[in-house]
Amino acid sequence: MDLRIDPERYWGTVERSAQIGIGRPGGLARVALSDSDREMRDQFVAWCRDAGCAVTVDGVGNIFARRKGTDDSLPPVVVGSHLDTQVNGGRYDGIVGVLAGLEVLRSLNSKNIQTRRAIEVVNWTNEEGARFSPPMIAAGAFAGVYPVDWVLDRRDDDGRRFGDELSRIGYAGAAPVGGRKLDSYFELHIEQGPLLDAKRIDVGVVTHGYTAHGFIVEVKGETAHTGPWPMDKRKNALVGAAMLAVAAHDIGWKYHATQGKGTAARIVAWPNKPGILSDWAQFTGDLRHEDPKLAAEMLSDFRERMKSCAERANVEMKIVDQWTWNAELFDQECIGLVRDTAKRMGLASLDLPSQAGHDAYHVARVAPTAMIFSPCKDGITHNNHEHADLERTVPAVNVLANVVLARANR
Amino acid sequence: MDLRIDPERYWGTVERSAQIGIGRPGGLARVALSDSDREMRDQFVAWCRDAGCAVTVDGVGNIFARRKGTDDSLPPVVVGSHLDTQVNGGRYDGIVGVLAGLEVLRSLNSKNIQTRRAIEVVNWTNEEGARFSPPMIAAGAFAGVYPVDWVLDRRDDDGRRFGDELSRIGYAGAAPVGGRKLDSYFELHIEQGPLLDAKRIDVGVVTHGYTAHGFIVEVKGETAHTGPWPMDKRKNALVGAAMLAVAAHDIGWKYHATQGKGTAARIVAWPNKPGILSDWAQFTGDLRHEDPKLAAEMLSDFRERMKSCAERANVEMKIVDQWTWNAELFDQECIGLVRDTAKRMGLASLDLPSQAGHDAYHVARVAPTAMIFSPCKDGITHNNHEHADLERTVPAVNVLANVVLARANR
Repeated sequence: MDLRIDPERYWGTVERSAQIGIGRPGGLARVALSDSDREMRDQFVAWCRDAGCAVTVDGVGNIFARRKGTDDSLPPVVVGSHLDTQVNGGRYDGIVGVLAGLEVLRSLNSKNIQTRRAIEVVNWTNEEGARFSPPMIAAGAFAGVYPVDWVLDRRDDDGRRFGDELSRIGYAGAAPVGGRKLDSYFELHIEQGPLLDAKRIDVGVVTHGYTAHGFIVEVKGETAHTGPWPMDKRKNALVGAAMLAVAAHDIGWKYHATQGKGTAARIVAWPNKPGILSDWAQFTGDLRHEDPKLAAEMLSDFRERMKSCAERANVEMKIVDQWTWNAELFDQECIGLVRDTAKRMGLASLDLPSQAGHDAYHVARVAPTAMIFSPCKDGITHNNHEHADLERTVPAVNVLANVVLARANR
Repeated sequence: MDLRIDPERYWGTVERSAQIGIGRPGGLARVALSDSDREMRDQFVAWCRDAGCAVTVDGVGNIFARRKGTDDSLPPVVVGSHLDTQVNGGRYDGIVGVLAGLEVLRSLNSKNIQTRRAIEVVNWTNEEGARFSPPMIAAGAFAGVYPVDWVLDRRDDDGRRFGDELSRIGYAGAAPVGGRKLDSYFELHIEQGPLLDAKRIDVGVVTHGYTAHGFIVEVKGETAHTGPWPMDKRKNALVGAAMLAVAAHDIGWKYHATQGKGTAARIVAWPNKPGILSDWAQFTGDLRHEDPKLAAEMLSDFRERMKSCAERANVEMKIVDQWTWNAELFDQECIGLVRDTAKRMGLASLDLPSQAGHDAYHVARVAPTAMIFSPCKDGITHNNHEHADLERTVPAVNVLANVVLARANR
């Protein structure tokens, strides 16, 4: 007899979350380490404690709520995602995943089911990267990809330190970051793509991820007057950054036929004012492709264009920050368990890749990992019109519950 | 016997100004209506009062220091420029012009020279446009180009109102803005170009100005995830703005052979963050040419490119703000007076156009106007390395003194 979660109870937590950090109509603006992030964390911790969990917070603010196993010395099964959002984020995104983890524990409690291994629900800090770059930074720290001190020293646009903001909201925890063995990690997330919604299939089995190459390019030029200064002497850093933005976008189009993506995400410049040429700019972009070789090709295409952009704009350019991820690392046994569980429960599932980056990509380096996708309407996400239906989310949560249960009794 | 100013006394005021609102080494960051703008204004007003002037401030913060004439009912001769700077501004720019006006009055005082007409020294507010767009806004208001209420409602990047900031620094004056007759207006300014420096000529007679077309384009798109969202559905406003920046720069190059200029001055976008496409952006640019017809051609070229950029980036674009100036309006009699005075004083002069915009362009609409340029090293300006020598500035100030004296005794 498979475990079934309580849909109403589950959705109640998603709806409560939708009241914290309200953004544009229907959406959320709950960026990492903000007051609303704290409020959501406090609510999440309270729910977890009510569910009988021991809550620990690590040095980069990741929250782990632990439900004991009968043999508590075994590595735990971990399940979760992230509660932070973009500034124009939706109500679902990773939130449905963290709260699905909580709902699994509540369901086990309701049915008085003990598991052999402990189960932990995790909320990873700053998955979005909307405030502190790069995204998935705290899951990366957990997996040893980023040094903890480096993470704590990251700064937001107003110059505020990650570590200071973490302390300010009361989530600079004492637990070590990573360095412990997990049995496995499972993450439920909305698909952030149109496939499940279009095909009317509610359970996505994530087989792998797109390779993504993200980068920040610093551009250096010289200030001068926008009137008299002749074109051949100009070193306008803003023009260099703009050329890079167009280049990244054009590369995306070049690989569009095979679903490649090229993004101009961000330009900042100084002074960035009328009447004066900018002597400094930064461009943040990324390039993504399902085929890691083509993703690498896109990146080298970008590097080539960077040279010609620097020449055309008469400025200096340098990649000052770079990150990459792919999810070839997902565990075949865990993937198979998700697929088989859906089948056993009589649910149609679809094998598909993840196009977005996820905390799971990092965690996969240190634990057997799999992801489950639930549908989102028309694939719209990172937008206040992002929408998910309870009825179409519950099947994935039920699969998650039984996957976790199976794994915890291993 | 021509009037000669006191070079040391004059340069003392320029050096005192260089201590107020210090920016990068050697430069100033004294943007309009900032605390340092107030400090400089207070210093200027104190100097003017010491020189026996009556000081009035108008409703947009323009400061007029009046030295009485023997027939005070006649329209005054007005002389001045601006004391504000860019965020990476130099120490000279318009500052040498305002303080030259003060020095003329001090020199007349020293020699007990009375003039028939009153002479007024003016400091125009927010010439640079570094904080409130557009540049030369308060001289524009004086000339009736911009309504006063519109000027007072302009906002800086932090949303602060021009009118509120003007009150905050104590320069929301009671005097009406414009609407009174001037005999003439003379403005001394560093050339902001390389000609005088290269030719070792110290007095520039400004015959006309470049035509400039400035604009702000608003770009509207949609937020979405930078990963899964397919290229053909993307409406990334930042990409649209970046394309416009490249277009303005390219148009500048297209007209480079005839000294045309095209500038990408500023891009702002929202959310402008990693992981999300921007749904809003603004691009600020300008196009300049000595030939008004070619300037108009550049503008229509930009409008055409705007259409194709909007299509390529799949966004909406609209010009939401636009300004233009040219200086065909300078008065031939005043220009001749400057040229003849230099000649009479045995100083070599050079007729040349102004490539930058100046307060004089607006004032020329309501009074006979001329400008005098002094050299600046290598034409470098809007940069902390801007440099002017006392010895090479004094000749232009002496010309100004005798031009003003002649005109005031008319």
